Amino acid sequence: MIPDHEFEKIEGVPGPTKQEIRCLVMCKAQISSDDVVLDVGCGTGGLTVEFSQRVKKVFAVDKNPQAVEVTLQNLKKFNPSGDVELFKNDALSVMENLPPLDVLVIGGSSGDLTPIIKRGHEILKKGGRIIVTAILLETRSTSVSILKELEMKPEIVEVSVARGKVLNSGTMMKANNPVAIITGYKNFN
Amino acid sequence: MIPDHEFEKIEGVPGPTKQEIRCLVMCKAQISSDDVVLDVGCGTGGLTVEFSQRVKKVFAVDKNPQAVEVTLQNLKKFNPSGDVELFKNDALSVMENLPPLDVLVIGGSSGDLTPIIKRGHEILKKGGRIIVTAILLETRSTSVSILKELEMKPEIVEVSVARGKVLNSGTMMKANNPVAIITGYKNFN
Amino acid sequence: MIPDHEFEKIEGVPGPTKQEIRCLVMCKAQISSDDVVLDVGCGTGGLTVEFSQRVKKVFAVDKNPQAVEVTLQNLKKFNPSGDVELFKNDALSVMENLPPLDVLVIGGSSGDLTPIIKRGHEILKKGGRIIVTAILLETRSTSVSILKELEMKPEIVEVSVARGKVLNSGTMMKANNPVAIITGYKNFN
Amino acid sequence: MIPDHEFEKIEGVPGPTKQEIRCLVMCKAQISSDDVVLDVGCGTGGLTVEFSQRVKKVFAVDKNPQAVEVTLQNLKKFNPSGDVELFKNDALSVMENLPPLDVLVIGGSSGDLTPIIKRGHEILKKGGRIIVTAILLETRSTSVSILKELEMKPEIVEVSVARGKVLNSGTMMKANNPVAIITGYKNFN
Repeated sequence: MIPDHEFEKIEGVPGPTKQEIRCLVMCKAQISSDDVVLDVGCGTGGLTVEFSQRVKKVFAVDKNPQAVEVTLQNLKKFNPSGDVELFKNDALSVMENLPPLDVLVIGGSSGDLTPIIKRGHEILKKGGRIIVTAILLETRSTSVSILKELEMKPEIVEVSVARGKVLNSGTMMKANNPVAIITGYKNFN
Repeated sequence: MIPDHEFEKIEGVPGPTKQEIRCLVMCKAQISSDDVVLDVGCGTGGLTVEFSQRVKKVFAVDKNPQAVEVTLQNLKKFNPSGDVELFKNDALSVMENLPPLDVLVIGGSSGDLTPIIKRGHEILKKGGRIIVTAILLETRSTSVSILKELEMKPEIVEVSVARGKVLNSGTMMKANNPVAIITGYKNFN
Repeated sequence: MIPDHEFEKIEGVPGPTKQEIRCLVMCKAQISSDDVVLDVGCGTGGLTVEFSQRVKKVFAVDKNPQAVEVTLQNLKKFNPSGDVELFKNDALSVMENLPPLDVLVIGGSSGDLTPIIKRGHEILKKGGRIIVTAILLETRSTSVSILKELEMKPEIVEVSVARGKVLNSGTMMKANNPVAIITGYKNFN
Repeated sequence: MIPDHEFEKIEGVPGPTKQEIRCLVMCKAQISSDDVVLDVGCGTGGLTVEFSQRVKKVFAVDKNPQAVEVTLQNLKKFNPSGDVELFKNDALSVMENLPPLDVLVIGGSSGDLTPIIKRGHEILKKGGRIIVTAILLETRSTSVSILKELEMKPEIVEVSVARGKVLNSGTMMKANNPVAIITGYKNFN
């Protein structure tokens, strides 16, 4: 996992997703090297880069041109040869023309959470996974509710990480903001 | 409890202790209106002010002249008539000449944690309480260890609070740094 | 604050609300000795007892007869002379005939969260407070949403407490389940 | 990652290490398929199994015969062909005769934390990693202190995970106990 501070950043673009959360998303996504992944709301590109190093193909989308720009920079820095297709667009438009997906990750949805999950469920392969990383309270309950409705057996964990700053006077624990990771499985028995 | 943002602040002086932690310290301290309290490492004066509104007498000490200055400002703002004695000094010197205490609160100890707790135990009344608020890892284990040695039945809770920022787009959960509250009781049965 | 283990308990009745959460609810409720409080979903009676020791009058309601029974036991144990009126009923029925309230606390709502908050808002005095303690994800977002709609300036904190078990081999940190505390103020400026 | 509930368990043997923590340990350990790993205090074998599926060779040790027994059962269940050597012994004895290690994981140390880390540092390859998972307060500060002394650039994160139980009435958040993960690097520049 790439340390947080090594990513290029642009002010006003959220991310990168913190290392521990990237790690947990990779686990929950149960990725394999054959997977096709869509990263919605790629922001700084933290998850896009990590997926690109582990799967066959990554599609990444963000409406914010600066997010697309910094994601591109991070791909060049960490995985210039990765098979990644980047879209400066809204997710629903991009999802009209995508091949079947193994994994859909949603880090930001610009108010379209419900239709993105529903459309994602349609284009997900059997056995595919949807993973939502939520910093908003409302995203948590909405994601669980829709995944339940779609019979995707939602799982939710809320993760709080405090990182020690090792000083001479002692180790000061500094909190990262809590993130909920919601996971659903298609045709899971 | 006074909201965090209403306290005067000086850059470089830590605090105020967040509202929820102040609230829990008041509970753990089992304060009554007759109590005499010593606040070691008063910083911005958050706890000093809250104690001053609820007990008979507060002594507060900090080595940092700016901490003493801003604590004074906050006392003037929130409780100008409170019975508070403020010392710009190191805690151990001040503790040589204090009357018996009901409550000793330690928010900062400048490397003197062990002797401050030991001296505090000596000048604590029967039934008195020592409360340490710890942001450093080492303060937690050291406090538990010394309070155990002094047979003060240590209790420790680690408290993580995330506060929602209510926006139009949703409620963003922002973490405060975790704080451990360690409590010991003198002659507790 | 009464230690958790001192409360009488009946299997199948949730609670008591953990000490740290009771403490924070008292703070968020900004109680004074003149206050009239309604405790909805009183469960084991932890909050009912604590309020009864600090305010003028407490109404407490629970649909579960065993909850009413154990709350009664705890009132007898900790505050036999407190002015508490207990109802084995659903909250909305009870709320038809109550005097104006200073504080409404909702610990359980049996699916009636929205109407209970709305009715509470109607019978709350100017300056009154509504406090919801939420262990369910959905209660959090719903409470924030309704309090926003009622222009009650919702505040939400999520509180995670880990309590140390002090053993000879060391101090084992055991987590309590996270609780969100949502607070709203009537005619707050 | 194997779900927690799929592991065989024996009463009195701690573990398995929860899924999210196993996931984070794999990340922090920066494992590669060539790695030689020692798992000290293997307990139920959760980490032993996960490592065995990802690295060249795993040594695992526990003093408790039942821990060795259940680890063996879990290896048979999840990775019968993995290259794992299991010792019912104390860690320091086993560490006298091991080949150079890439990764040392310490989940339990039976009071020998300091000598185990020091001996581990000696037999660690250049670039090797030591990872301690700590549920005890004292293990956290001691690990950081020794790794600092050994100039292993300690990093510590404390991880709190709450898992949602999805019910008809809503999603109840249940906390796992917090775990600290302390990591050190040999000859890190």
